[in-house]
Amino acid sequence: MAIAKRAVRVRNVLIGGDEPCICAPVVGADAKQVLEETRQITEKKPHLIEWRADFFEAIRDEQEVAATSRKMRAIAGDIPILFTVRSEQEGGQPISLTEEEKIRLFETVCESGAIDLLDYELAHGPRIPIVRELTRRYGVRLVLSYHNFDHTPSKEELVAKMRQAEQCGADIAKAAVMPKTRGDVLTLLQATEEARKEVDIPLITMSMGALGAITRLAGGLFGSAVTFAVGRQSSAPGQIPIEDVRTALSVIMKYSQ
Amino acid sequence: MAIAKRAVRVRNVLIGGDEPCICAPVVGADAKQVLEETRQITEKKPHLIEWRADFFEAIRDEQEVAATSRKMRAIAGDIPILFTVRSEQEGGQPISLTEEEKIRLFETVCESGAIDLLDYELAHGPRIPIVRELTRRYGVRLVLSYHNFDHTPSKEELVAKMRQAEQCGADIAKAAVMPKTRGDVLTLLQATEEARKEVDIPLITMSMGALGAITRLAGGLFGSAVTFAVGRQSSAPGQIPIEDVRTALSVIMKYSQ
Repeated sequence: MAIAKRAVRVRNVLIGGDEPCICAPVVGADAKQVLEETRQITEKKPHLIEWRADFFEAIRDEQEVAATSRKMRAIAGDIPILFTVRSEQEGGQPISLTEEEKIRLFETVCESGAIDLLDYELAHGPRIPIVRELTRRYGVRLVLSYHNFDHTPSKEELVAKMRQAEQCGADIAKAAVMPKTRGDVLTLLQATEEARKEVDIPLITMSMGALGAITRLAGGLFGSAVTFAVGRQSSAPGQIPIEDVRTALSVIMKYSQ
Repeated sequence: MAIAKRAVRVRNVLIGGDEPCICAPVVGADAKQVLEETRQITEKKPHLIEWRADFFEAIRDEQEVAATSRKMRAIAGDIPILFTVRSEQEGGQPISLTEEEKIRLFETVCESGAIDLLDYELAHGPRIPIVRELTRRYGVRLVLSYHNFDHTPSKEELVAKMRQAEQCGADIAKAAVMPKTRGDVLTLLQATEEARKEVDIPLITMSMGALGAITRLAGGLFGSAVTFAVGRQSSAPGQIPIEDVRTALSVIMKYSQ
């Protein structure tokens, strides 16, 4: 396992330490579904739960989002919650919030005290300092992410994205890209391995789809600190059920250096 | 799984098809140990059994080697047997046979009808045609192999070794190398992936030791047709017990393209 210099401790979970963390997404459309999914996922004891709030129909209702996140917190116990409103351009659901409205929502949700980490996309460049400032104010960790559902950029571009995330003040850098060839899968792993040497914050990387599925199991060896796995429902192509991820990781980690 | 254009069928086993084969080594010092190991390994139903005859103390006694191989065949049923006398320079045990004596031993063992595949090192250049001719005469498949216990050569050198094995008439090309960094592990996988496109025969590749252990599980995705796993005793650094290899492969193959 490749360890991050600036590993992040959130509640009792160490992200970027010597064990890859498993994060399960919640994708419910309303509070009932979100809370039921949270209940089912909590039973499977992932290290982290991600609320993909772009799937939430009442996303325009800040108070409903904050109330739901507080109920999730009560159910999830001490499992850290990552709050994500994935933009449509980077693989999320279509939502009607402007970027300003999204940032106001972030503030309300951070203020609720229910969430531990917040995901924001690197692509929003000039708005990042605002989000960095507000997350810091509430003690929420910031994941700056890059997604490419079309292809896998070069190793150099991928490393540059992770370096940029660190420079923008991220606590964690994430890169999720789509492979077209088996070579692309190796490019993502190489970029992770190189960024692990250059960048001090934890990295979360993956090559999506069935072609890249191996990166969700072996990525930790090359420096990816978190693997997204299916608790109840998948949120991106190639995600593997938690139980199977655990089975494979137990062998991989036992024999690997 | 990356498939070889010229996949090799030996008995009921397809090497280079859409499922990675598991090969378990036998490393006994005498006939009793060799046969007992063969018995224990056969129960674990690997696709292939390799007799690492460089561990066999009576290796100078051609008739004893041939008789032992026939007894192995009786025990192994229809599991193909790969006969290997690994040279000391490439990670084998010290033996007192000259290269000429080794080739005479190969002839006796091939003639016995007990073995299905024979491993010979690419490094023996000028003698390869002799071994190729004799294996062909007895219907034995030839694995031409390259080992480097010191380091991992460049991707280009590794691809060249596998191309050379094909040009020398190998039925299967093998490359086993030692990584010093995680980058070396990815170099081996990249070389496998590139050679898989260029070379028509099945490939067997691995990055050794705990650093390279992941290649023994994920190599099949990039074009390695066989993974060596421990039945009873390991024959090289980084080998994983058969049961654990099967557990991890079942997850990897289920979700990977």
